[in-house]
Amino acid sequence: MRKSSAKAGAAKPNRTASKRPALKPAAIALRAIKGGKPAAAPEKKPVARVIPTPDAPDDVPVIALNLPPAKLSPAMQAYFKKCEQKLGFVPNVLLAYAFDSAKLEPFVAMYNELMLGESGLSKLEREMIAVAVSSQNRCYYCLTAHGAAVRQYSGNPLLGEQIVMNYRVARTGKRERAMLDFAVKLTSAPWSVEEADRERLRRAGFSDRDIWDISAVASFFNMSNRVASATDMRPNTSYHKQAR
Amino acid sequence: MRKSSAKAGAAKPNRTASKRPALKPAAIALRAIKGGKPAAAPEKKPVARVIPTPDAPDDVPVIALNLPPAKLSPAMQAYFKKCEQKLGFVPNVLLAYAFDSAKLEPFVAMYNELMLGESGLSKLEREMIAVAVSSQNRCYYCLTAHGAAVRQYSGNPLLGEQIVMNYRVARTGKRERAMLDFAVKLTSAPWSVEEADRERLRRAGFSDRDIWDISAVASFFNMSNRVASATDMRPNTSYHKQAR
Amino acid sequence: MRKSSAKAGAAKPNRTASKRPALKPAAIALRAIKGGKPAAAPEKKPVARVIPTPDAPDDVPVIALNLPPAKLSPAMQAYFKKCEQKLGFVPNVLLAYAFDSAKLEPFVAMYNELMLGESGLSKLEREMIAVAVSSQNRCYYCLTAHGAAVRQYSGNPLLGEQIVMNYRVARTGKRERAMLDFAVKLTSAPWSVEEADRERLRRAGFSDRDIWDISAVASFFNMSNRVASATDMRPNTSYHKQAR
Amino acid sequence: MRKSSAKAGAAKPNRTASKRPALKPAAIALRAIKGGKPAAAPEKKPVARVIPTPDAPDDVPVIALNLPPAKLSPAMQAYFKKCEQKLGFVPNVLLAYAFDSAKLEPFVAMYNELMLGESGLSKLEREMIAVAVSSQNRCYYCLTAHGAAVRQYSGNPLLGEQIVMNYRVARTGKRERAMLDFAVKLTSAPWSVEEADRERLRRAGFSDRDIWDISAVASFFNMSNRVASATDMRPNTSYHKQAR
Amino acid sequence: MRKSSAKAGAAKPNRTASKRPALKPAAIALRAIKGGKPAAAPEKKPVARVIPTPDAPDDVPVIALNLPPAKLSPAMQAYFKKCEQKLGFVPNVLLAYAFDSAKLEPFVAMYNELMLGESGLSKLEREMIAVAVSSQNRCYYCLTAHGAAVRQYSGNPLLGEQIVMNYRVARTGKRERAMLDFAVKLTSAPWSVEEADRERLRRAGFSDRDIWDISAVASFFNMSNRVASATDMRPNTSYHKQAR
Amino acid sequence: MRKSSAKAGAAKPNRTASKRPALKPAAIALRAIKGGKPAAAPEKKPVARVIPTPDAPDDVPVIALNLPPAKLSPAMQAYFKKCEQKLGFVPNVLLAYAFDSAKLEPFVAMYNELMLGESGLSKLEREMIAVAVSSQNRCYYCLTAHGAAVRQYSGNPLLGEQIVMNYRVARTGKRERAMLDFAVKLTSAPWSVEEADRERLRRAGFSDRDIWDISAVASFFNMSNRVASATDMRPNTSYHKQAR
Repeated sequence: MRKSSAKAGAAKPNRTASKRPALKPAAIALRAIKGGKPAAAPEKKPVARVIPTPDAPDDVPVIALNLPPAKLSPAMQAYFKKCEQKLGFVPNVLLAYAFDSAKLEPFVAMYNELMLGESGLSKLEREMIAVAVSSQNRCYYCLTAHGAAVRQYSGNPLLGEQIVMNYRVARTGKRERAMLDFAVKLTSAPWSVEEADRERLRRAGFSDRDIWDISAVASFFNMSNRVASATDMRPNTSYHKQAR
Repeated sequence: MRKSSAKAGAAKPNRTASKRPALKPAAIALRAIKGGKPAAAPEKKPVARVIPTPDAPDDVPVIALNLPPAKLSPAMQAYFKKCEQKLGFVPNVLLAYAFDSAKLEPFVAMYNELMLGESGLSKLEREMIAVAVSSQNRCYYCLTAHGAAVRQYSGNPLLGEQIVMNYRVARTGKRERAMLDFAVKLTSAPWSVEEADRERLRRAGFSDRDIWDISAVASFFNMSNRVASATDMRPNTSYHKQAR
Repeated sequence: MRKSSAKAGAAKPNRTASKRPALKPAAIALRAIKGGKPAAAPEKKPVARVIPTPDAPDDVPVIALNLPPAKLSPAMQAYFKKCEQKLGFVPNVLLAYAFDSAKLEPFVAMYNELMLGESGLSKLEREMIAVAVSSQNRCYYCLTAHGAAVRQYSGNPLLGEQIVMNYRVARTGKRERAMLDFAVKLTSAPWSVEEADRERLRRAGFSDRDIWDISAVASFFNMSNRVASATDMRPNTSYHKQAR
Repeated sequence: MRKSSAKAGAAKPNRTASKRPALKPAAIALRAIKGGKPAAAPEKKPVARVIPTPDAPDDVPVIALNLPPAKLSPAMQAYFKKCEQKLGFVPNVLLAYAFDSAKLEPFVAMYNELMLGESGLSKLEREMIAVAVSSQNRCYYCLTAHGAAVRQYSGNPLLGEQIVMNYRVARTGKRERAMLDFAVKLTSAPWSVEEADRERLRRAGFSDRDIWDISAVASFFNMSNRVASATDMRPNTSYHKQAR
Repeated sequence: MRKSSAKAGAAKPNRTASKRPALKPAAIALRAIKGGKPAAAPEKKPVARVIPTPDAPDDVPVIALNLPPAKLSPAMQAYFKKCEQKLGFVPNVLLAYAFDSAKLEPFVAMYNELMLGESGLSKLEREMIAVAVSSQNRCYYCLTAHGAAVRQYSGNPLLGEQIVMNYRVARTGKRERAMLDFAVKLTSAPWSVEEADRERLRRAGFSDRDIWDISAVASFFNMSNRVASATDMRPNTSYHKQAR
Repeated sequence: MRKSSAKAGAAKPNRTASKRPALKPAAIALRAIKGGKPAAAPEKKPVARVIPTPDAPDDVPVIALNLPPAKLSPAMQAYFKKCEQKLGFVPNVLLAYAFDSAKLEPFVAMYNELMLGESGLSKLEREMIAVAVSSQNRCYYCLTAHGAAVRQYSGNPLLGEQIVMNYRVARTGKRERAMLDFAVKLTSAPWSVEEADRERLRRAGFSDRDIWDISAVASFFNMSNRVASATDMRPNTSYHKQAR
């Protein structure tokens, strides 16, 4: 008789931790970040992995590199505190950069200017670009964090999922479609972007300053996606339940 | 002073419906399916799109082809009824095939044998293959429906998201990783699959019969993904909230 | 003086059989298929390969998996008998699936409905799609079996060769070209198929039901090609001489 | 009842000739080639295409460029005569180059040295490289002409078909497999060929001079394939029936 | 007799200026940058292009977007002055960003920290990564500016050319080769970078902090390359003659 | 305090010579070429590599194959002497082929006819094709040698660099752009070149004979690039300083 158990051979994600070095858990990083003395670098031995779930604390290592957190500058301490107040947590990408304030600060400055600063693009549009680019690059960290942002800003949970999966199925207007087509072409074949592509954006109603912003946001996530992939950066589990 | 509204320029997904022919709404299909006489094919005029959201009814057209639903065979009527009882809805892929029972029946038979029949692979493993393949092909329908299944069978919502985004970040065991590597290679470069690839599966503990099943499931979704993309098939909105 | 022998260093295909497990020869499978008891699974030892040639019997292993044939259901026994009467042989793909009637039956049902059932597409057109898709996926089994079908249905041996090699060189009409362009795009980049692609088919004279059929046939061979590649399925040698 | 005619909608290849300029038919070219005065360039008007079949004469235009044949040098006249005596026809690639003896002569010299001259590679091996490369580039002309040569030299019709379709399925020895792997890598990603690739050939028994020859033959067909594709070169129909 | 003039049909690059909007010439930008009032945006009319040559002034438009330069902050004014003193010119990428100090400042901060700050990687190594990544993305601006830097830092003009063309031909040591392999893989297939890739770097002698730096530099140029391609950014002509 | 030495960790190209066989230095080849007796094949032992620089003599091995030079035919001896008189050196590609006059002669004949013979294309245009194709294939030898030729023929050093890096940024006229687009498409996807592509060239003013020449030059470099990559052919260092 036919039968099959869903349990037999089920994935046991945390039993088979590949032999990565013991990494900086976010918890340790956070202590350092809050102004204490830098935690000692953990020894290189296999650690028992806690399965990450939306309900579990953020105790997975943030990245797969052994980088002891540094003492944050007062500005960055204040910024991390603000993150905790507004979001309930410090985004892991910030913890990842927190091993060196000299690297963290320009990253935060550039990110905030691009994604939250003045622009002809709405914040939602910028997040849509972030997700469409990250989908092209299959970046787990950015799809998780910015997929949540699209769900939140749009008030449309499906829109976030669609851009994660294939932006072409999203029933956006022509303006957003032109914007995403440009961002994705710039991601997958930057050498082939030419005046005709910029003209297409102008015809969809974008100013030259908007074109700069579309380009800059798409380009920024081509950087961020790669930092995340290169270091196996893990998103905070809180993102997963946001705005579903 | 800098400010930017998240609302300005926000995506208004449903205002700009591209001029697709009026399609068979799932509701109409369902009426026919339940045994009534086939609904008349709707006229070809632009329809006001209802924004699909997880809370809205499944009233979007299921596919972008104008195919009037046929009268279902008794067996299929019974099957659809069973779907409603167990899932609360008839999966849209079945409604899509419902314009011709001669096409629907072998599809249902093959699907059920592969995904629910006896196998050395657990149901979760088969769903993981479905999602990894669908991610490669960026298939909105299958990622939505089978992503939900992975979340459900695994009891781990993150695992579903990870395989949708990039299966390599999922901390599965070696067995599952070998299985997904094979399925993804078979998807993206089938001509290059050779004995060494099968040997890798055998070394990971799979029998020759398991290898058939991995191959058959991966191949099946290479078919399904393409039927879905070719027809712009839309998933039931209920999937989105399942097992988050 | 210059000379060179065509014989020196000539390929000796069967001397260097890679170490695959001994497989189910079609002959054994056939015995089982005809209603006898399932043949014992052959031992795993290197076998002396017989060079397959158009004049040799079908004694090569059908697939590279060791799957003992099962007793066929009466329906499938009758079907195989019919194959032998009409074609002179049972296509190897059927022998490959014959290890499990539960897998064989839906495959046969789906195949026959798609390729031989009622449709707005001629049988030749469906075979042309099969070959164009299989060429994209470089599938030896399907190119051989369906290449022969194109030669046969069209009465034009060159047409079969052309679609095997590069469908763009075939001097088909605009209708067939649009159909093959769609099938090949669906094969190589399914995520990018959109309404504009369906519109192109409509302009070439295809109905929405025809578009379903084009999609379904192209999708089916994206499945079949992968089952064949994953299992190293070998075509019956008889195909090679058909309709040259 | 279900039925479907193979004839309905069948491809009618020659009715829908695309508007190419009237081209130099091989017959005309041949007259010029035999020493007469160059034929006048045919006018630019649509011509009724004769369906090319293996039984029809070679009256299709050889290439899609309007290049009146030139008077051949005595050496080339003798060479063409020799082709007719040995093969029964002049290969169309030679007719294509025959519009300028200054282009024809080095082509013939290079071809003959590479494919027929002294080498550590057998003639069959060189033809196998030609076909594997042409398959990668999907070149109709070269697959047809050199596929026939592999069938002929090997006495194994299936081997020719296999290399046309996917060289990996051919059960060649390790030596030939290494040779074809190198040729195909050099075709698809020449920038990535490095010392490790040459070492693999040396380990398979090839001398440095053999490596030159493998490289030179693979490279030559990367040239020939492109001249053929750029000009829509058509193979002589006689090749199709050879050595089946 | 055969002859052919190199002049006939020679490329006349500046006669055929495509209809791009009149752009901010670097000269105008520079005036604004030095502290004067922002120059008025030039009108949108076709301009006579001056051929850019290594000996000509930098009077080509820096980017293909019409973005009037802003008044620079004192810090940026000082920085641009320093550039002129040390390099003899302000790099065009800075002029491009100079339309908004809020965008320019984080870019400069991030760039200087990454390329000139403390690191386990030498400045030459960081420039080699910049060029290898830019070659993958075929970025004219970055290949020109950073190709010059490799020539300069290495004292080996050929090394710069080699990494522009194909980094695999450069006879670097194993350390540099491992570093460039990682950077190029991260560029072309970021989703596939995994622990094994990081391990390869560790085996080549890199610390985890070095791996961060390799990743960050490669990622930064994946951003910069795209900003440059999206805006058709033009390098200062001075780079071309540097360190030949 | 922050500091970083450009010297620390600098690339030391010649210390880490990979274990290639000792190769035929150009100097030895040249001696043989000038009519002396063939030099003995150098033994297979690691050699101390001299760093190639623009000022160093051409003493690097020309190719990575151990092929003792042959005695040149009188015609080739004369040709090499002419090269030395006109260029100051014999191009390494000729030294590479010089191990067999039967291979060298047709190569020289074909090259000279194509690149220097009568044609509707200027010599500069032919060199532009050579470089655009070689950039696609990332061929170090051909980019170096023919990049220099573009700089020289055009009198515009930047044009040479641009086509090496990304031909799309070169401000050529429409004629040259159409020509390069065709050559690059023929290089990267020869199977997709069709009548519409030839028509685009005709509309840009090219005759059918010009189209042959564009095709033949692009195809020739698809051959040459691969011979160079397969053998690790090294360009004469003199090219690097030419026409900067």
